[in-house]
Amino acid sequence: MSTTRFLTGITTTGTPHLGNYVGSIRPSVAASRTPGVQSFYFLADYHALIKCEDPARIQRSTLEIAASWLAAGLDPERVTFYRQSDIPETTELTWLLTCVTGKGLLNRAHAYKAAQDKNAAAGREPDDGVTAGLFMYPVLMGADILIFNAHKVPVGRDQIQHIEMARDMAASFNHLYGEHFTLPEAAIDEHVATLPGLDGRKMSKSYDNTIPLFSSREQLRKLIGGILTDSRAPGEPKEVEGSALFQIYQAFATPAETEALRKHYAEGIAWGDAKQMLFERIDRDVAPLRARYEDLIAHPEKIEQTLLAGAERARQIATPFVRTLRAAVGLRSLAQGATAPKAAKASKAALPSFKQYREADGQFYFKFVAADGRLLLQSTGFAAPKDAGQAIARLQQQGEGALSGQLAPVEGVLPQDVAAALQQLAEAANS
Amino acid sequence: MSTTRFLTGITTTGTPHLGNYVGSIRPSVAASRTPGVQSFYFLADYHALIKCEDPARIQRSTLEIAASWLAAGLDPERVTFYRQSDIPETTELTWLLTCVTGKGLLNRAHAYKAAQDKNAAAGREPDDGVTAGLFMYPVLMGADILIFNAHKVPVGRDQIQHIEMARDMAASFNHLYGEHFTLPEAAIDEHVATLPGLDGRKMSKSYDNTIPLFSSREQLRKLIGGILTDSRAPGEPKEVEGSALFQIYQAFATPAETEALRKHYAEGIAWGDAKQMLFERIDRDVAPLRARYEDLIAHPEKIEQTLLAGAERARQIATPFVRTLRAAVGLRSLAQGATAPKAAKASKAALPSFKQYREADGQFYFKFVAADGRLLLQSTGFAAPKDAGQAIARLQQQGEGALSGQLAPVEGVLPQDVAAALQQLAEAANS
Repeated sequence: MSTTRFLTGITTTGTPHLGNYVGSIRPSVAASRTPGVQSFYFLADYHALIKCEDPARIQRSTLEIAASWLAAGLDPERVTFYRQSDIPETTELTWLLTCVTGKGLLNRAHAYKAAQDKNAAAGREPDDGVTAGLFMYPVLMGADILIFNAHKVPVGRDQIQHIEMARDMAASFNHLYGEHFTLPEAAIDEHVATLPGLDGRKMSKSYDNTIPLFSSREQLRKLIGGILTDSRAPGEPKEVEGSALFQIYQAFATPAETEALRKHYAEGIAWGDAKQMLFERIDRDVAPLRARYEDLIAHPEKIEQTLLAGAERARQIATPFVRTLRAAVGLRSLAQGATAPKAAKASKAALPSFKQYREADGQFYFKFVAADGRLLLQSTGFAAPKDAGQAIARLQQQGEGALSGQLAPVEGVLPQDVAAALQQLAEAANS
Repeated sequence: MSTTRFLTGITTTGTPHLGNYVGSIRPSVAASRTPGVQSFYFLADYHALIKCEDPARIQRSTLEIAASWLAAGLDPERVTFYRQSDIPETTELTWLLTCVTGKGLLNRAHAYKAAQDKNAAAGREPDDGVTAGLFMYPVLMGADILIFNAHKVPVGRDQIQHIEMARDMAASFNHLYGEHFTLPEAAIDEHVATLPGLDGRKMSKSYDNTIPLFSSREQLRKLIGGILTDSRAPGEPKEVEGSALFQIYQAFATPAETEALRKHYAEGIAWGDAKQMLFERIDRDVAPLRARYEDLIAHPEKIEQTLLAGAERARQIATPFVRTLRAAVGLRSLAQGATAPKAAKASKAALPSFKQYREADGQFYFKFVAADGRLLLQSTGFAAPKDAGQAIARLQQQGEGALSGQLAPVEGVLPQDVAAALQQLAEAANS
């Protein structure tokens, strides 16, 4: 496959604000236009159920987020834009993955551990108020990614662990039932812009300091008027350092415009005038989007049609793929002979395999494991998963000798054992 | 609804043996003929994935179990007989229930705790080798039951907890999203026949001491010949107490036949002759079933058709019901006005509610809770859930006075608070 599949989910519990626009919507829409990329964007409403018990809010949020992304220029002809719950195969795959996922893996999930820590600090039982939904969230996310065999999942640093878990699930499934899944990779943008909110802290619904992306011009002006500033009077030079107003301006402005505001600060611009500049600058970008947004929100049936069309396209992949996965695990028509698959499974189960993983040191490793589970080869660390993958490819093409410096010794394994296992794997691939 | 819905699942990992026949298949088939009962029997292949990683075994077991039940007289016209994985809505409901289930509830599941205890005894990490599948099994089972709003689930004592968990999930969901689920009850047969196996221990796949329900006459004779007996010679009187052979005979024979064998034991029947009697007696029952079984196994496409027809019937209930549940939690078409549901939810969320539950003392209780979560009434214990339900009905019809002896005092609650809350509930029901 020459195109790379990117997948991005947006949880449908809130109303998009300027921070979401700058940090996620704007860069994602830009990225979706990259050539050679196949993008999947989905409204994660099954995920929303974990933290939101208000059905109307989920519905409203789905509408607002869909309208925001479309208004911001996401092209549903070019990308696959769908609502998660329109792909119910996702929950079926969730169950298949649940059965190959160690509970211990989920115990270590950051979000779950944070909930436990919070309970411990408050002197409560570790799982107090924790739902099974929070605990199982990484498996649902694994299914979201694996159902489309996405290669890359753009995430913040705090989400890397979830991608690694999805890789683990994919690898376990592949090991048990044959190579069905691509191991996904996190695509981390180190330069994700976070915007300060009205009070100077990170703009976030949980701080109640947001400026909605789409409010009326008047509301936008009023909200910008409420941004916290210091008490320097007009004429006094102002600090750009730590100025929320300046940072928000910068997120919308060109470098030249930013320089101009910096100069105004030094020359003692009045806060009221600076706020007016910020308002005008944001509104210049947002006004055309706002018109589209309002038109979309006024016609929810059009958005619904767009999402259903996206789901139909997504299911052209998901439905046959889940059918294949069902057959792989044994959920098969009885009319298909029951003995033939047994032989296939037996030869599949009896194959040596490669396992790729990431260690706490941040490096990427692989193991080569015999059919009976015995460790045959252990790599040293690689800087990127791609490097580990290329080393495996060299190993398969040229044998153990090709990797002399990149293998840690494994006690009791003879070179001929490794050669025989590689041979077995090569034969199975060609049979 | 005047009929009672019974639901029974059979995990598809093994080959039915005489113990399954006597303990489960035979009584279930008989029960399925009870008038006024609507029965659901399903092949639990999603469950099978938890403990079986061999796809061919799952497929083969599904075939053998389906053929066994049909050969034993289960009438697919009369009962709804289906394969669990043909109702993928089950996994969707599993996710909805996952989001309303406390993780703490699952921590206390017997099967999960047994796995933890075993690890502790072996000095391993508590979750060593435990899959998320084992941990989440009660939620999948809850979905199996609740998707058909089954009233009764015939189970052994060891499974009561799972039914109670399904009740908890149903109650949580109802509390959050309105009354959608019937609270299921365990139907416990105290007289479940367990059969000894070849070695005298309980007949069980895990002891490798089973006699398959359907083997050839010759194999059956040979296996019965291998039943463990003591060394008493022909002519010596024999003990019926502790005799596996006698117990197996009894499970198939009439009381008169059993008495006759008891007399033969006392008169010193040779073990070989007793085994021949047992063989003839079992074969008399099994032979006609065996003929049907062999015909069915030879035509797996017919069984497949039967199961698909059963699934179609089951989905006539499951598909629209899950659609309703999706709408209840907020997975809704955007084309349906987003504001109307908000009002509906608001009035729903603002209602007082009854909570029924079981305490450690084995008795059934209810609480009446105000819309804001404040406790209004607390019942004393009832012997059966039905009694608690009737008390609630009386309370709703006649007010608090009707239950004077059955309420424990709640501090700070005035009679008019209770009356007002009951009134509010009554008005909501009629609106």
